Amino acid sequence: MCRWLAYSGTPVLLETILYKPAHSLIDQSLHSRMGVETTNGDGFGVGWYGPDLRTPAIVRDIGPAWSNRNLREIAGHVRSPLFFAHIRASTGSAVQQTNCHPFRHGSWMWMHNGAIAEFHRMRRDLALAVDPELFLDMEGSTDSELMFYLALTFGLEQDPPGAVARMAGLVERTGHEHGVEFPLQMTLAVTDGERLWGFRYSSQKASRSLFYSTQVDTLRALHPDLAFLREVSGGTRLIVSEPLGDLPGAWNAVPEGTCGVVQPEGDEMFSFAPREPALA
Amino acid sequence: MCRWLAYSGTPVLLETILYKPAHSLIDQSLHSRMGVETTNGDGFGVGWYGPDLRTPAIVRDIGPAWSNRNLREIAGHVRSPLFFAHIRASTGSAVQQTNCHPFRHGSWMWMHNGAIAEFHRMRRDLALAVDPELFLDMEGSTDSELMFYLALTFGLEQDPPGAVARMAGLVERTGHEHGVEFPLQMTLAVTDGERLWGFRYSSQKASRSLFYSTQVDTLRALHPDLAFLREVSGGTRLIVSEPLGDLPGAWNAVPEGTCGVVQPEGDEMFSFAPREPALA
Amino acid sequence: MCRWLAYSGTPVLLETILYKPAHSLIDQSLHSRMGVETTNGDGFGVGWYGPDLRTPAIVRDIGPAWSNRNLREIAGHVRSPLFFAHIRASTGSAVQQTNCHPFRHGSWMWMHNGAIAEFHRMRRDLALAVDPELFLDMEGSTDSELMFYLALTFGLEQDPPGAVARMAGLVERTGHEHGVEFPLQMTLAVTDGERLWGFRYSSQKASRSLFYSTQVDTLRALHPDLAFLREVSGGTRLIVSEPLGDLPGAWNAVPEGTCGVVQPEGDEMFSFAPREPALA
Amino acid sequence: MCRWLAYSGTPVLLETILYKPAHSLIDQSLHSRMGVETTNGDGFGVGWYGPDLRTPAIVRDIGPAWSNRNLREIAGHVRSPLFFAHIRASTGSAVQQTNCHPFRHGSWMWMHNGAIAEFHRMRRDLALAVDPELFLDMEGSTDSELMFYLALTFGLEQDPPGAVARMAGLVERTGHEHGVEFPLQMTLAVTDGERLWGFRYSSQKASRSLFYSTQVDTLRALHPDLAFLREVSGGTRLIVSEPLGDLPGAWNAVPEGTCGVVQPEGDEMFSFAPREPALA
Repeated sequence: MCRWLAYSGTPVLLETILYKPAHSLIDQSLHSRMGVETTNGDGFGVGWYGPDLRTPAIVRDIGPAWSNRNLREIAGHVRSPLFFAHIRASTGSAVQQTNCHPFRHGSWMWMHNGAIAEFHRMRRDLALAVDPELFLDMEGSTDSELMFYLALTFGLEQDPPGAVARMAGLVERTGHEHGVEFPLQMTLAVTDGERLWGFRYSSQKASRSLFYSTQVDTLRALHPDLAFLREVSGGTRLIVSEPLGDLPGAWNAVPEGTCGVVQPEGDEMFSFAPREPALA
Repeated sequence: MCRWLAYSGTPVLLETILYKPAHSLIDQSLHSRMGVETTNGDGFGVGWYGPDLRTPAIVRDIGPAWSNRNLREIAGHVRSPLFFAHIRASTGSAVQQTNCHPFRHGSWMWMHNGAIAEFHRMRRDLALAVDPELFLDMEGSTDSELMFYLALTFGLEQDPPGAVARMAGLVERTGHEHGVEFPLQMTLAVTDGERLWGFRYSSQKASRSLFYSTQVDTLRALHPDLAFLREVSGGTRLIVSEPLGDLPGAWNAVPEGTCGVVQPEGDEMFSFAPREPALA
Repeated sequence: MCRWLAYSGTPVLLETILYKPAHSLIDQSLHSRMGVETTNGDGFGVGWYGPDLRTPAIVRDIGPAWSNRNLREIAGHVRSPLFFAHIRASTGSAVQQTNCHPFRHGSWMWMHNGAIAEFHRMRRDLALAVDPELFLDMEGSTDSELMFYLALTFGLEQDPPGAVARMAGLVERTGHEHGVEFPLQMTLAVTDGERLWGFRYSSQKASRSLFYSTQVDTLRALHPDLAFLREVSGGTRLIVSEPLGDLPGAWNAVPEGTCGVVQPEGDEMFSFAPREPALA
Repeated sequence: MCRWLAYSGTPVLLETILYKPAHSLIDQSLHSRMGVETTNGDGFGVGWYGPDLRTPAIVRDIGPAWSNRNLREIAGHVRSPLFFAHIRASTGSAVQQTNCHPFRHGSWMWMHNGAIAEFHRMRRDLALAVDPELFLDMEGSTDSELMFYLALTFGLEQDPPGAVARMAGLVERTGHEHGVEFPLQMTLAVTDGERLWGFRYSSQKASRSLFYSTQVDTLRALHPDLAFLREVSGGTRLIVSEPLGDLPGAWNAVPEGTCGVVQPEGDEMFSFAPREPALA
């Protein structure tokens, strides 16, 4: 499986979030505490939005994040108000750049932790459900990328929670047709550069860990001495596979079967369940 | 496009063929004379059969062959009676190990130079024609790998020339349906570890270069002073994208629309044309 | 050998200079016209200064620049007023990240095209001349990095042209002691993030090509229709191994034995010659 | 730190030793039990002697061993009577091919687990002690490679235990001059293709783990049912950083301060201590 992190808020150097915390994502690449594997060394990726371009930059590579000097350089010199980072532990598919997260389509980014159970057997059926126009843009061989293209097929750009629900519905239906009891396991992050959606769901109701950071105002009251908290805006929010440190009150588990949205008009959380996709 | 080389005959160190000739495949990676591009630096692969295993070893990597030290080490220490080597110049698909040739299925190997015209548009239709069982094993995003799986679908293991003809027929039919006048350009090498098939064909009758080496007996008579020729068996044969040197009489162009077979019972060459595949 | 490019001026997306010109550095990685090799595919690097940090970011990798997606992403999203880019053609030393240019020490960057003749034999003597404190920071095995550390030893941070002259003097003296007639061949770019020095010199007075761009005012008068020229400041300047295009009047050869400085107080060019370093 | 394995005996497919055991070296790359780090993912190498060449082949790469397909291919197709394998956990020096073990000089191979304490500060002094002729061949930046070249300088090819003792003596003397109390920590494997030496030593008498396999005769008597033991010759021996499995009686700790030799005339073990090298 994998670990990931999504940041939205006051523009910061990526290293502030990626390297500096005690149990940073880079630390998790060697010593994950809550992941299925403690080591996440099969590639990584970081995607960020800049001040003036709608399309994010995405840098991905196939070695472990912990020893990658280019990631260190970029993190130390690039500021962003909205970025994704992902470390990969392959469950079988090839370790190659096109299998690293985040994935991009236009101004949208997508990253995933989890798996489609027995994906190997379902891959062709799911691939056929992708819009033929979009099919051409898939480059890798992961379930994660295919889930992204299914969600795009089902209207991700118009209705993210609905499109993800239909994607999940299709995966479950296809799985059941192949005799798979619990087809889907996912924590997902999706963004268009302005809003950020996080999802936690699994067919078995035993999803991988996912946390969101406490509202900055509340944290400031709890920890008036922390300079960092005075520097970031009230709307700053993190969604992470596992907490970046042990700060009391800072991290909250996303409940099972939930979608959260980080957005200028106020963050929200609501329940999430797969939905039967319209017939293809 | 790419350059490739197939060897069958007396077991030799790979370097004898890969590095030592004046215009070796490694030299061609920097200075191809007859290719579409002079530089073939987007990955490489070598596949060889050993003395006791039916399945070939395949080593592929994404950098240029000319600077790869591991390839140099392997070539200097591995002997084989039948091996493939390939250097890649990507026409757009990702530079990644799963897109490097040769490709393998069981004891079979396949490598390709050429392209399916406007592959991007035809990719989905062609992928749907692959046997669902085989579909699951495709890992990369090249036209070359897809052509291999189509040929496997059409019976490569029973009738290689027939299966390749049906694959070519499907590519041409699909191309024409998409309004592509000349859909296919290919030189191909295929082997099961005992026999070696080479193909030269293009829809436009203007195929990429392909050569085969002259019968060893004839070469010995022409060049009685060449020690190398005395050491190799009479059945030793090379098929190459471009000649490895300037030895007079050593290289012969494979004619347009031709399939050649290197085999213990005597080599053969016959004309090749696409064939309409049975309806799926 | 190699090819390089140094930019100083109005902040631009790196791609404006690295990818967009007709004969861009990326094009030169496959099709160099004036280099010793037409292919420069043995690694690359880019180093840039940002708006608020004194230390440049340096991203380097070992594959060819032409197919590197991360370089493309960075170039499309990072703006900088002062950056270096380099593509490498190894003359023998290993293809590894620590041998890729630019090299960095504190806020300084250095890149090089050329070679120390018979470097293999002189390497130890030259390494001994490096300040023991600085010795510890050398990571690679190139003559180029060693030249940088010799220049740092000789006072690069106080007097760049003097330190480079003493480095060149030491290389020539050491070469002559080893019976090498023409020990040094170099075009160099050095910067501290504010000023940019370019050097062209070779023991044989037959240096690799080096060009600087014409003053922006003059170019605007020559080409009043070019929008790009209206957008950049008068002080914008490029130093390049070979011209990025065919714009008449845009490129001027740096004369043999010359050092040029690009700086806020007005650019300068003066003659350059090696100088005997004080005895260690 | 690192983990390694040296095999000498009946020629086997490398995979028999590298992949098949329950706690194989590949498993140790993710889940080392006795190493300083559980993860050894900063590159790997394998070096083997073939049937007819004196010089070993060495294949090294910078990613983790656990996901490397080329290593899997080679291990599944290459047989050897004497081979080394090494997985690396960098203690700071660059992750690059020239820093991966084993190292080679002529027909000799060398690999190491451990470190020179505060190597950064001692590196120059130690490098100066290397024979100037040999200096030129060092390509990487590790303490391990430098230790190899010091041992070569001190006569490794004539007297391996003596040369290693003098290397260790120099490292300790140099360390003490720099105020380092415990300068050396090492387990080493050295071979000329016929004999195999293993060393376990540290200045602090708290060396990294090292084990050797029990004499095959004894093991056969203990485990008459194990087919594998009937197939290998009586002289077959493994030296490993940690046991490859839990077979009772199979593994024995190499004592502190010990050198063992695996050789046709009968294996031996004797005590090892650093020796003062003659003044340079």
